[in-house]
Amino acid sequence: MAIIVQKFGGTSVADAGKIRRAAKRVIEAVNNGFEVVVVASARGKQTDRLIADALELNPNPPERELDQLLSTGEIQSVSLFAMALDAAGYEAISFTGAQIRMITDSVHTKARIKSIDAEKIREQLGKGKIVLVAGFQGIDENGNITTLGRGGSDTSAVALAAALGARECEIYTDVDGIHTTDPRIFKGAARMDLISYDEMLELSSLGAGVMHTRAVEFGKKYDVKIHVRSSIEEKEGTIITHEVPQMEDVVVSGATIQKDMAKIDLIGVDNKPGNAAKVFAALAAAKVVVSDIVQTEVSAEKANLSFIISTSDLRAAKEAVEQIKDDVSCQSVFVRDDIAEVSVVGVGMRTHYGVAEKLFGALAKAQINIDAITTSEIRISCVVNKEQAKDALRAVSAAFELDKVAQDRAKRG
Amino acid sequence: MAIIVQKFGGTSVADAGKIRRAAKRVIEAVNNGFEVVVVASARGKQTDRLIADALELNPNPPERELDQLLSTGEIQSVSLFAMALDAAGYEAISFTGAQIRMITDSVHTKARIKSIDAEKIREQLGKGKIVLVAGFQGIDENGNITTLGRGGSDTSAVALAAALGARECEIYTDVDGIHTTDPRIFKGAARMDLISYDEMLELSSLGAGVMHTRAVEFGKKYDVKIHVRSSIEEKEGTIITHEVPQMEDVVVSGATIQKDMAKIDLIGVDNKPGNAAKVFAALAAAKVVVSDIVQTEVSAEKANLSFIISTSDLRAAKEAVEQIKDDVSCQSVFVRDDIAEVSVVGVGMRTHYGVAEKLFGALAKAQINIDAITTSEIRISCVVNKEQAKDALRAVSAAFELDKVAQDRAKRG
Repeated sequence: MAIIVQKFGGTSVADAGKIRRAAKRVIEAVNNGFEVVVVASARGKQTDRLIADALELNPNPPERELDQLLSTGEIQSVSLFAMALDAAGYEAISFTGAQIRMITDSVHTKARIKSIDAEKIREQLGKGKIVLVAGFQGIDENGNITTLGRGGSDTSAVALAAALGARECEIYTDVDGIHTTDPRIFKGAARMDLISYDEMLELSSLGAGVMHTRAVEFGKKYDVKIHVRSSIEEKEGTIITHEVPQMEDVVVSGATIQKDMAKIDLIGVDNKPGNAAKVFAALAAAKVVVSDIVQTEVSAEKANLSFIISTSDLRAAKEAVEQIKDDVSCQSVFVRDDIAEVSVVGVGMRTHYGVAEKLFGALAKAQINIDAITTSEIRISCVVNKEQAKDALRAVSAAFELDKVAQDRAKRG
Repeated sequence: MAIIVQKFGGTSVADAGKIRRAAKRVIEAVNNGFEVVVVASARGKQTDRLIADALELNPNPPERELDQLLSTGEIQSVSLFAMALDAAGYEAISFTGAQIRMITDSVHTKARIKSIDAEKIREQLGKGKIVLVAGFQGIDENGNITTLGRGGSDTSAVALAAALGARECEIYTDVDGIHTTDPRIFKGAARMDLISYDEMLELSSLGAGVMHTRAVEFGKKYDVKIHVRSSIEEKEGTIITHEVPQMEDVVVSGATIQKDMAKIDLIGVDNKPGNAAKVFAALAAAKVVVSDIVQTEVSAEKANLSFIISTSDLRAAKEAVEQIKDDVSCQSVFVRDDIAEVSVVGVGMRTHYGVAEKLFGALAKAQINIDAITTSEIRISCVVNKEQAKDALRAVSAAFELDKVAQDRAKRG
């Protein structure tokens, strides 16, 4: 019998009524002849409440204990979910991460999955039971409870789908799929039927927010078909899958903005080997995540070094830069925290010309100045003034006809 | 280094302030040179809330899932407690029942402990850490989470003290120790410095409520010194220990009343082998806990059978009796739900005469009618009218001078 993994987020299991509605989705799949494995997140604001309880006792709680604490939220969800299924007449059994031996590394609060005891789950499915697994959590080799980072239940679900060879991993959420861009900003934003892992990875890491980035990576690596769909409306959502030829017909499949970004420029750094490494080592030691590094020579001896960070890391980044700047003979440091990044993503870029011109042209026509440009194989990002960010996204979305993309994409096969 | 186990109940860890206060007790013990293992219950009304959540989804939740759900409350308490200790500068590590392999049988919601991995705890104590263990929970041989029944954290604590060879198991509670009788009813009720396991078992099973009965049994079996003391006031409480010679000087060490009792009489049951067994088999099948069985012959062919139950079991008991009564040729069934049971307990009874007379005399003088009498080696119980229960307890407490008992008992050595 084919297996389906269904993942329900915190809002989908927030109260008894919502758990019952989610249970109906599970029962539909069972009645359609599937063996079903359910992954659930902590109910509603449960995780936030537990974090608040922890911070009240300790402003800097030990991460092992924080993981131990937070893991309880998902355990509560799945045991309650099992009770709802039992009440509806369906046999169900819930497991903690430890019980199915979801083994991770020991990096508390952002652990990575190493292996899963799929046999234990198969055994219960074989007995005709619906299996529920607490998302977001695992154990390390020593039996310490770990968590996968916020949104980690997506990763739990995709990893289980991979381990079980599931036909599909359904991610139930409060939107009806992946959109070409943010519908709150560009009204015409279209829902896509299909998107490639690579495009989804770019969109997720640019803050499109629907899926946990590592879940998409996992799906790509282990070839798991991921279906992002609404927990409220009963209709198909967006399938995240391997690239199919038709995808290249669409040059740009999506566009995003990332606000809350800051840009730091180190002006006049001594242009000698090892100086850039020193700067980024200092930033890494301060746990600052850096993107979009640009280095330009300004003379034979001097170079300017600039990079983008999240504003939440700004204080730590400034401190790190202050400490290192004399060491690399930096003449001055320039910080901007009023920027945003507009990006377009699409696997079609690999084979089509003119994307950059079209993007720059659209921004120029809307009178939006571009501060910096970075690119990947399937992405172009422009740093713009934060106040113009929404206008920039609308201009770009119109230029690339993001209200039409869904129709052009190959339908689910 | 000597080990102390400290157990804190739900009210002692209900909020951040209370957890900090409990942490101070732990730190005191550490500073006094002890290795400390802490057992905590779920915070405040957490367990009640989780049960309510469960019942909202399923009026009859599967017990395995209920155990899975409820176990999270204690895990939250110990991880938060560890954070509080860390904030105070003390290294601490919390464990779930599963992590220290608190192996139980598979009787969900009232499992019994079979073994504990004390080595894992000793290893952490050896590293200078305070070890916290989630109370109330274990796992069965298959890794399913079990719970030990309400109040089971007492049992977790005493079992850990036994497994670790701890010097003492401290039970922190909102009263300052064990009293000769209920201070709310008999004002002069004295706190005892010492009480024997057997006396405590009788008092606990009679509803004196301070300690979980099975914890006391465990203490007796494995020779664990249990110290019941106040989590608020810093003074010695009551030591529960093996009988010491001085104890016999006090004939009656405590008195209790159990309200919410009912009495069922089966009148004119055929007096032949197997009939009593049939009645109690039917009651057992209906999960009714029966105490104080009395059978009296009324003729060569007929006998009357009576027993005491809790009023919460009354409906189930009546149904069971209705089903079996024709089978044992019972002529009529008589039910009273307006009764209470007054008991006196004391190891001194074994060697002293006249306890029964004194008890009956005290009740007669107070014009309280005795409905039924049952005895054990160290206990005498009288069934009385519920309305007279408090008067009965006061009369008995005065007759046996329960305001003086504590002074007569051997002081803690």
